[in-house]
Amino acid sequence: MKQSQLFTKTLRQAPKDEKCLSVRLLLRAGFVAKLSAGVYVLLPLGLRALQNIQKIISQEIENIGGQRLLMSVLIPKKNWQQTGRWKTFEELYKVKGKNNQEYGLGSTHEEVVVPLVQKYVFSYKDLPCYVYQIQTKFRDEIRVKSGILRTREFDMKDLYSFHTNEKDLDRYYEKVKKTYFKILKRVGLKAQTYLCLASGGSFSKFSHEFQTITSAGEDLIHICQNCGLAINQEIKQGYPKCPQCGKKEFKKEKAIEVGNIFKIKTKYTEPFDFQFVDKDGARKLVIMGCYGIGPSRLMGTIVEVHNDKKGIIWPKEAAPFDVHLIQVENSQKVKKEAEKIYQNLQKQGIEVLYDDRDKTAGEKFTDADLIGIPVRIVVSERTLKTNSVEIKERNKQETKLVRISHLSQFLKSYV
Amino acid sequence: MKQSQLFTKTLRQAPKDEKCLSVRLLLRAGFVAKLSAGVYVLLPLGLRALQNIQKIISQEIENIGGQRLLMSVLIPKKNWQQTGRWKTFEELYKVKGKNNQEYGLGSTHEEVVVPLVQKYVFSYKDLPCYVYQIQTKFRDEIRVKSGILRTREFDMKDLYSFHTNEKDLDRYYEKVKKTYFKILKRVGLKAQTYLCLASGGSFSKFSHEFQTITSAGEDLIHICQNCGLAINQEIKQGYPKCPQCGKKEFKKEKAIEVGNIFKIKTKYTEPFDFQFVDKDGARKLVIMGCYGIGPSRLMGTIVEVHNDKKGIIWPKEAAPFDVHLIQVENSQKVKKEAEKIYQNLQKQGIEVLYDDRDKTAGEKFTDADLIGIPVRIVVSERTLKTNSVEIKERNKQETKLVRISHLSQFLKSYV
Repeated sequence: MKQSQLFTKTLRQAPKDEKCLSVRLLLRAGFVAKLSAGVYVLLPLGLRALQNIQKIISQEIENIGGQRLLMSVLIPKKNWQQTGRWKTFEELYKVKGKNNQEYGLGSTHEEVVVPLVQKYVFSYKDLPCYVYQIQTKFRDEIRVKSGILRTREFDMKDLYSFHTNEKDLDRYYEKVKKTYFKILKRVGLKAQTYLCLASGGSFSKFSHEFQTITSAGEDLIHICQNCGLAINQEIKQGYPKCPQCGKKEFKKEKAIEVGNIFKIKTKYTEPFDFQFVDKDGARKLVIMGCYGIGPSRLMGTIVEVHNDKKGIIWPKEAAPFDVHLIQVENSQKVKKEAEKIYQNLQKQGIEVLYDDRDKTAGEKFTDADLIGIPVRIVVSERTLKTNSVEIKERNKQETKLVRISHLSQFLKSYV
Repeated sequence: MKQSQLFTKTLRQAPKDEKCLSVRLLLRAGFVAKLSAGVYVLLPLGLRALQNIQKIISQEIENIGGQRLLMSVLIPKKNWQQTGRWKTFEELYKVKGKNNQEYGLGSTHEEVVVPLVQKYVFSYKDLPCYVYQIQTKFRDEIRVKSGILRTREFDMKDLYSFHTNEKDLDRYYEKVKKTYFKILKRVGLKAQTYLCLASGGSFSKFSHEFQTITSAGEDLIHICQNCGLAINQEIKQGYPKCPQCGKKEFKKEKAIEVGNIFKIKTKYTEPFDFQFVDKDGARKLVIMGCYGIGPSRLMGTIVEVHNDKKGIIWPKEAAPFDVHLIQVENSQKVKKEAEKIYQNLQKQGIEVLYDDRDKTAGEKFTDADLIGIPVRIVVSERTLKTNSVEIKERNKQETKLVRISHLSQFLKSYV
């Protein structure tokens, strides 16, 4: 994409009412725009980054058998009543249509997925079964002070698993745990993220959260200094010792919950009376797990963790483009060469943001650092003297001159 | 994908309360499930078809400069008040949050896109500018009787163009018109679709609709038998002659509006006072066009138009898979060969639904016809005698035996 055609512009200052670092950077760099408290628009750069994160999640969830579908946002009142959550779910937005149909706007989808899967699953032969979606969710949050880390409208991947017995649920639960760390590795958050015990409600001893350490986090976690397991502050007083290794040294950190996994067992299959016929001919309730990870929250967390005073530093796989190509000095020769490189790189499937604007080199470099694409390529009169371009990685200091004829080969290790 | 792992099943009968042919087929074939009146879930096959349609639209809109973004579903009351639509837009779902914030659920996005683009566009140098999104929209429809052709929650591509003058808007408007026919060609609806004059409101003589002839259509159009231009019944009485060629013979048809394009000019830039500085230094209102096409409605329309008594006949580019591979007779040899073909085709980037279930040949063929994937490949003891598979196109009668060693080459003309 040519930067001259991008309708957004970088901003010198973030709005004063935004306190959270990640959203300040995302606003300034032109990834998001604020519509109202807790409601943001994803601008072209932001949507590209989000779609990359969604793609990573989708690939990894399909690798463990997830079948993608898309449930509705409008969930009829009667579905919520069936589980009792019409009255108890405080964050549910409720809407009433002309014909007095009432809906809760989807913030989680057990009330839809259970009766849906129930239509097709009758026997142990139909199980296990794993379905997921990536969808816009809604939650009537009282406080929204963390930019895109906590919003009233957000993006969610929710996976639901259905099993004949708890052992099979346990097996799949461990698989999802590993898969979540694969996802976190690919989006550049593995090193900062801890598996964390949290309340399991009435159905399970604990649930597990994936907590990423950052000062913008709204949770407090206690990390075992021996084995690395974390415990959420909310349940910490029940655990003087680490339940995994028995040691007693913990470090307290602020963290943000980027994912959670939960053995909900029969909590939602029971109210819908979702039974199957087992091998022994007996009718039994289906056992469930549910697993959430938020692509838009991950995007905010990535920025919260990966930045410097100049701007964002995108990890490779989440970056909106692979390469930021910049032409400086507006001679015909430089323009022509830059355009040629732009076309060639794209032909090789490399995604390029090409800064073809009439701006000074200084302005372009400042914008490039703010936007944070992993590799910057500069074409100038000076570099062309040796038929070269200058390459710099966003997270390194040094620059390298690389012959244009060697560029594709050279980039293979970067993109 | 292996069909044994698909959690959905085909249904012998569609529910009696669904009258519309397309949704009856989509329900029976396992593409959609009904949640409540006008609210459907997209099952794995349905989501794949929808995503293919979205991809075609997205490619064609980006070819004419569209920049993709994602606006919000929650649109603050004050935005709607600015244009007066909070009171006048009857289909708007309204929702009130805990802190008394009120929102209208997005059913169209002029109230968001205008103040958004206004943040970044100041001068004639920043124009023209084209932004679009593909998003779930909401409309509080009183009557929903046409399956997924008219729903309360649906998928929409909305494109908005911004210009310095009407001539530039006219130029782009013609470009979008051509692009919409390209999209309709790729999804297999060009032959059945007419450009149709409709009311232009107070800002333009007409708008244009793209009307596809089908008995399930809720509109009536009058097609000029000389030049092929259509006129919507709603404005027909003003046009005794064809406004394009002057002839007077028309044919009346039922049709469904799959897209519309509209020169809204300053209708929405005026209430937001969205001005730019022109070349002559004068401040002028930005001129707008808006252009809608509904991927989920297109999906329903495709099925409405392309089917026979056995089921759906998907056009190539919209089909959920390229190939339906079926093994019949469950010998080890057949299973092994079919599995090998499944793996090989996938390696070549061909998308395969592989029916590996323990079902009779008859059941598998019936399901394949109902689901409607363009190419069916059968592997059996009989075909393996000549190291072949049997190939049949969904929309043809004849079958062909093709050597397995020639299969990839042979499929090139199909997928």
